[in-house]
Amino acid sequence: MREQNPIRSEMGWSTPDRIGVRGQDLVSDLIGKVSLGDVAWLEIMGTLPTPDESVLFNAMMVTMVEHGMTPNAIAARMTYLGAPESLNSAVAAGLCGLGTVFAGTAEGAARLLQDAFGNAGAEPDLGGIASRIVADFRAKKAQIPGLGHPVHKPIDPRTPKLFGLAREHGRFGAHCELMERIGAEATRVSGRPLPVNATGAIGAIASELGIDWRLCRGIAVMGRAIGLVGHIAEEIRNPIAREIWDRVDEEASEDTRPK
Amino acid sequence: MREQNPIRSEMGWSTPDRIGVRGQDLVSDLIGKVSLGDVAWLEIMGTLPTPDESVLFNAMMVTMVEHGMTPNAIAARMTYLGAPESLNSAVAAGLCGLGTVFAGTAEGAARLLQDAFGNAGAEPDLGGIASRIVADFRAKKAQIPGLGHPVHKPIDPRTPKLFGLAREHGRFGAHCELMERIGAEATRVSGRPLPVNATGAIGAIASELGIDWRLCRGIAVMGRAIGLVGHIAEEIRNPIAREIWDRVDEEASEDTRPK
Amino acid sequence: MREQNPIRSEMGWSTPDRIGVRGQDLVSDLIGKVSLGDVAWLEIMGTLPTPDESVLFNAMMVTMVEHGMTPNAIAARMTYLGAPESLNSAVAAGLCGLGTVFAGTAEGAARLLQDAFGNAGAEPDLGGIASRIVADFRAKKAQIPGLGHPVHKPIDPRTPKLFGLAREHGRFGAHCELMERIGAEATRVSGRPLPVNATGAIGAIASELGIDWRLCRGIAVMGRAIGLVGHIAEEIRNPIAREIWDRVDEEASEDTRPK
Amino acid sequence: MREQNPIRSEMGWSTPDRIGVRGQDLVSDLIGKVSLGDVAWLEIMGTLPTPDESVLFNAMMVTMVEHGMTPNAIAARMTYLGAPESLNSAVAAGLCGLGTVFAGTAEGAARLLQDAFGNAGAEPDLGGIASRIVADFRAKKAQIPGLGHPVHKPIDPRTPKLFGLAREHGRFGAHCELMERIGAEATRVSGRPLPVNATGAIGAIASELGIDWRLCRGIAVMGRAIGLVGHIAEEIRNPIAREIWDRVDEEASEDTRPK
Repeated sequence: MREQNPIRSEMGWSTPDRIGVRGQDLVSDLIGKVSLGDVAWLEIMGTLPTPDESVLFNAMMVTMVEHGMTPNAIAARMTYLGAPESLNSAVAAGLCGLGTVFAGTAEGAARLLQDAFGNAGAEPDLGGIASRIVADFRAKKAQIPGLGHPVHKPIDPRTPKLFGLAREHGRFGAHCELMERIGAEATRVSGRPLPVNATGAIGAIASELGIDWRLCRGIAVMGRAIGLVGHIAEEIRNPIAREIWDRVDEEASEDTRPK
Repeated sequence: MREQNPIRSEMGWSTPDRIGVRGQDLVSDLIGKVSLGDVAWLEIMGTLPTPDESVLFNAMMVTMVEHGMTPNAIAARMTYLGAPESLNSAVAAGLCGLGTVFAGTAEGAARLLQDAFGNAGAEPDLGGIASRIVADFRAKKAQIPGLGHPVHKPIDPRTPKLFGLAREHGRFGAHCELMERIGAEATRVSGRPLPVNATGAIGAIASELGIDWRLCRGIAVMGRAIGLVGHIAEEIRNPIAREIWDRVDEEASEDTRPK
Repeated sequence: MREQNPIRSEMGWSTPDRIGVRGQDLVSDLIGKVSLGDVAWLEIMGTLPTPDESVLFNAMMVTMVEHGMTPNAIAARMTYLGAPESLNSAVAAGLCGLGTVFAGTAEGAARLLQDAFGNAGAEPDLGGIASRIVADFRAKKAQIPGLGHPVHKPIDPRTPKLFGLAREHGRFGAHCELMERIGAEATRVSGRPLPVNATGAIGAIASELGIDWRLCRGIAVMGRAIGLVGHIAEEIRNPIAREIWDRVDEEASEDTRPK
Repeated sequence: MREQNPIRSEMGWSTPDRIGVRGQDLVSDLIGKVSLGDVAWLEIMGTLPTPDESVLFNAMMVTMVEHGMTPNAIAARMTYLGAPESLNSAVAAGLCGLGTVFAGTAEGAARLLQDAFGNAGAEPDLGGIASRIVADFRAKKAQIPGLGHPVHKPIDPRTPKLFGLAREHGRFGAHCELMERIGAEATRVSGRPLPVNATGAIGAIASELGIDWRLCRGIAVMGRAIGLVGHIAEEIRNPIAREIWDRVDEEASEDTRPK
């Protein structure tokens, strides 16, 4: 017989007249007193944020809420067209696409930085680390997560804003600096602009705030879940999903459909 | 040939150096200035919230963030166990369960209220409407959405808090009053406590704020997406999904598995 | 202390050298001997199908595999574009849209039929039942599930094929006949062609086979999961998702994007 | 102005009276004539399978349908508990967990094999390739996909069955042999049994059949989608999700919940 391990969670509990959320009383401590973004910090970090942490954490999530008619917004609207009774599933369908190509990339950037410092000594040589990382990725012919953007070039306007906030709020540390050096080195070596993009900046600042790289995709997930509800709200007011479908369907089968 | 309809969205746009979000400039107007919960209002309603709207809207979403080891939290952890490379899909799996039984019920409550006032005249008789609604549901042997709770009884502690905030911030109107009357009438008629629960209060306050009932499930979705990231964060720190799986698997096949 | 209920499942079990699946030995009884569609019947019904059951059950699932560039196929491709590392999540995103509007409608049709016979006596008057159902839906101004199709008109070519197979294989019973009568009555009363469509036929035949209406959406789910893998296969060979995205994004923000 | 690329798909088309599926007529060629598993091959490969291909392809999918109370089955049942109106979303939630840890591993195994032969010359030295692969993974301290199993040891009973079928049906080629050699070499070098498991065998046989490694996770997805419908069918007949939830919830908050 296998020995059982305990099943324990500190996320929350319920009694008939009370609800606990990470050590706080939901009704007396949180509802009406703490904003959604600050409760997100509480959920992940276990304490309410300091004012500096609050500004930076909200700023990172807000950055990821909305980016127009992205593939995940289209997926959510297509899903809603077939299942308007399940707004939750439409948002879920959209979130399924936040992978390695688009919004999930803060994870890769944070991992790169956290691994680099995990293996570095007390006084890391940032320039040397950046060169080594860029050379490694070139040898593997892989893209460095957190650099470059197909639309926002030569620079991603969100990056100076986020890094500026990090400076103002005392969190522009070695992770942020290393990220910038990686971008500069990649630009120099490749001969084309590869500056830090929004998810690169988020990966770096999240690392400064002590957030495990494995959670950094969650920053995009929390923001974009909100953005996808926004898209469904617009789809209700002004539906476009059916027109997208009709056009795609008509063109896609133009050559094979019998006339 | 079918005539094409235009495809238009006001959610956002991008140029190389700027990003628009519902008429605001993401970098200069939102990041670092507006909190996540207020950007959620912007996404859905198109304007930034007034201070009263901000308190109430954040309060409703915060109410839904965390409720301990719910079925959707278990689903998200099970998914993460099999696909730790896709935190986004684990959250998506959890959101798929926010349906008509648990957190999706604000939608049903808001629909009830908005339909009632849509069909009512200028000076609606709230008591009469409440009686009719309760009688209709009893005739159909259906549960009235937004009433009663298996754990939080005789009263759901979130409801007086939310309705109290609605009063403080000038939004305890006819929808809230009707919801309370429906709860009182259902309690009277059924002979057991059926007061307004948290999603009932949210459906009523959202209706006061002008939110379409078809979007009210989104309030839970936005909150719980955050809570599910919190559960994955704990699963990374202190994994319990495998133990849950092992116990369920062992017991489930106890009778049929050859010894 | 709450008293615990047992947790039991007959779906399957594992030992180091054997795997049981619904009373069969996976390795010696199923792999290489039983086709996928017949194992699907085993999973749901607990026995292997008779030859007649096998033909009809496979026919129903095959009917739902592929219908070109549907909204769920577009959603799956959009998801794959962002997360090519998670083919499973792309299929999941597509399945989220099999709701009440499109492929999920076999559920509604089967429910209608099973409820009708549940309440009927020994020798039900099918014409009378059909009239009552059509009148009820007209009074509610609701669409009858399983009737009519925007493209396949005046008749859905899948329906005569499926009902023909049901006749050949001895399963064209009262549920099928009632479904046809509902279609005829709805056509008569509304004055426009509302014949039984593919999901209506599937709901009726599934009812003849003893499948609970709550599972009938599963017939579409099993078929379409396969079709969505097919769409991802094509997306790998001949990618079109990015072009769809680019076009939608460009047109959607045409009026609001600064020039 | 960006130049547009065509949007074309060969998956299917519709006219009022016909439906095309990969060059076949759905009604006259497929429904009632071709089984679900063979239509799956058609969807992915574009032709109907030969009898040998049919046996092997069905065998691989059947292998993945059911494995008892897996994490994805638990996730699907938890989702159904909250959203019984969306069976499709419950299956979707389950599929989200078919990632790199469990059922998605056929993808990794197939990639390993296809990459190895892509880089090898005309007469590859299988022993040398196997040694190099095992050494590479040991250097990275990574697990080799497709080897070993926590329960099915020392050998996974599905593997000899699948490889036996591959031999019988003339498809036990170099990919299968290399997979076996990798298992033997890993066992030798690590000093513990690491034979080829079911997903390793599937990755190898799928490679013999010409299936791109990026699609191999789809074999599990198509099979398990069916298995998850089976679990929901049992959940309807004999519900256990609530008991699982109750037990987990009670134990998880035992230490933190006020008494």
